[in-house]
Amino acid sequence: MGQDQTYIHGYAVAEDRRLHDQAATLEELLHHDLTFPAGSIVLEAGSGVGAQTIPLLRRNPGIRLTCLDRSAPSLDAARARLCAAGLPLPEFRQADLRAMPFSDGAFDHAFVCFVLEHLPEPEAALAELRRVVRPGGSLTVIEGDHGSVLLHPDDEAARAAIACQVALQRAASGDARIGRRLAPLLVGAGFTAVRVSPRPVLADATRPALVDGFVRRTSTAMVAGIRDEAMQAGLTDAAAFEAGLRGLLRTAEGDGTFGYTFFKATAVVPSVHR
Amino acid sequence: MGQDQTYIHGYAVAEDRRLHDQAATLEELLHHDLTFPAGSIVLEAGSGVGAQTIPLLRRNPGIRLTCLDRSAPSLDAARARLCAAGLPLPEFRQADLRAMPFSDGAFDHAFVCFVLEHLPEPEAALAELRRVVRPGGSLTVIEGDHGSVLLHPDDEAARAAIACQVALQRAASGDARIGRRLAPLLVGAGFTAVRVSPRPVLADATRPALVDGFVRRTSTAMVAGIRDEAMQAGLTDAAAFEAGLRGLLRTAEGDGTFGYTFFKATAVVPSVHR
Repeated sequence: MGQDQTYIHGYAVAEDRRLHDQAATLEELLHHDLTFPAGSIVLEAGSGVGAQTIPLLRRNPGIRLTCLDRSAPSLDAARARLCAAGLPLPEFRQADLRAMPFSDGAFDHAFVCFVLEHLPEPEAALAELRRVVRPGGSLTVIEGDHGSVLLHPDDEAARAAIACQVALQRAASGDARIGRRLAPLLVGAGFTAVRVSPRPVLADATRPALVDGFVRRTSTAMVAGIRDEAMQAGLTDAAAFEAGLRGLLRTAEGDGTFGYTFFKATAVVPSVHR
Repeated sequence: MGQDQTYIHGYAVAEDRRLHDQAATLEELLHHDLTFPAGSIVLEAGSGVGAQTIPLLRRNPGIRLTCLDRSAPSLDAARARLCAAGLPLPEFRQADLRAMPFSDGAFDHAFVCFVLEHLPEPEAALAELRRVVRPGGSLTVIEGDHGSVLLHPDDEAARAAIACQVALQRAASGDARIGRRLAPLLVGAGFTAVRVSPRPVLADATRPALVDGFVRRTSTAMVAGIRDEAMQAGLTDAAAFEAGLRGLLRTAEGDGTFGYTFFKATAVVPSVHR
């Protein structure tokens, strides 16, 4: 992550904790099929503070990984986190996803998680990813889609608070609802064998860990984190925003439910003579 | 289906065809894990015209099935359809789901698909289902949720047309967004071991059969079917509604996507001494 100057998620300590919680709660859902052959040369593009690097390396200890991010502080945080987790350190490179310092076909596989949503030009990053992965190699992309939120009880103020986050991300030239667009983006970038797999999360009283980790500590915390920015942008006021947060937290009570869908796409770089 | 006098889906020939198409396209997604031990005594409650009875019987040829519906024409249509499909005929019973003509614990398992969404009191039907399934027996419920629709390109008119269907179903005391409520409904009805599994459908150009079967012939056709009723209810006008249908069909083009999430719940009737 961290490809945008007007970056939404930020690097604060609370955010760092939130990203960790989300990674732990959702790791099985998102990454259970994230496997690369031992010896593969893999790029994680937009690796940010390393939240997704940990499951990538844990599940694939035999790969040769390069982590690319444009933020030096994020790369430093990722290095510290991987050290603390006792994982082998990948190569770290600081660069923009639109102009990667790699030769054509340098990688067998590339992995991009919660990154494209922040980019003004996801097409440019996908063109670069297609260039640096060898023909026959693969790309894996995971993104969310804030339009997929399902609330019970449904709550207009809560949906309005989420809409503030969508609007802020759009103002920063990102797209918080990019998940539904992955197939046309990958097809348009010239990838082949494109497959998009929706990964729905449904938190209800029968899954208390998910209610705590995903509804309270991830989703509601993420929305709460944009409060000041949303008010400064004139998108909401304190009372309306607090009502929205209450509505989100209401879904975490015993008779409530909260749904969200992530999208995981895989695609292959076509052969030259294809 | 067919539990409501003000029933939304109707019995017309075009509808019958649509329900068939939907069943074929989505059967694997919804029913791949619909298996009951041979010899099980199974109830399909709200079996309607038999669209879901076919996959139930095909996948479970050894069960002893009873189909219950309050509509005699629906039961006749189901009988004809099962005959034509060469399937063994279940027992057919005409009755209301809120007062079933069965003794306590008469069934090992019950199956309810696209029915609760139409009921003014789903709680009453669930109480009856809990009564007629034996302790330790199971209930399987499948419902949709029209709030889960994801469109790309997003289209306000299309979302407004879908909202007409939600409003009409609400006016008929149903809930087109009941999918997200299944867990609290089942827990509230006293079932145990409640699990709800979201079943997302994502139709894009990489899945042309799904685009045709689900986006054009199921979802858009279903919305188109409520046109006159929505106009009579003052929810829309001809121009706005046609724009909505165009917006839905636009998502079926090469660079579009259409997402929808079904919800499949399973639950167990607790033992008496629990």
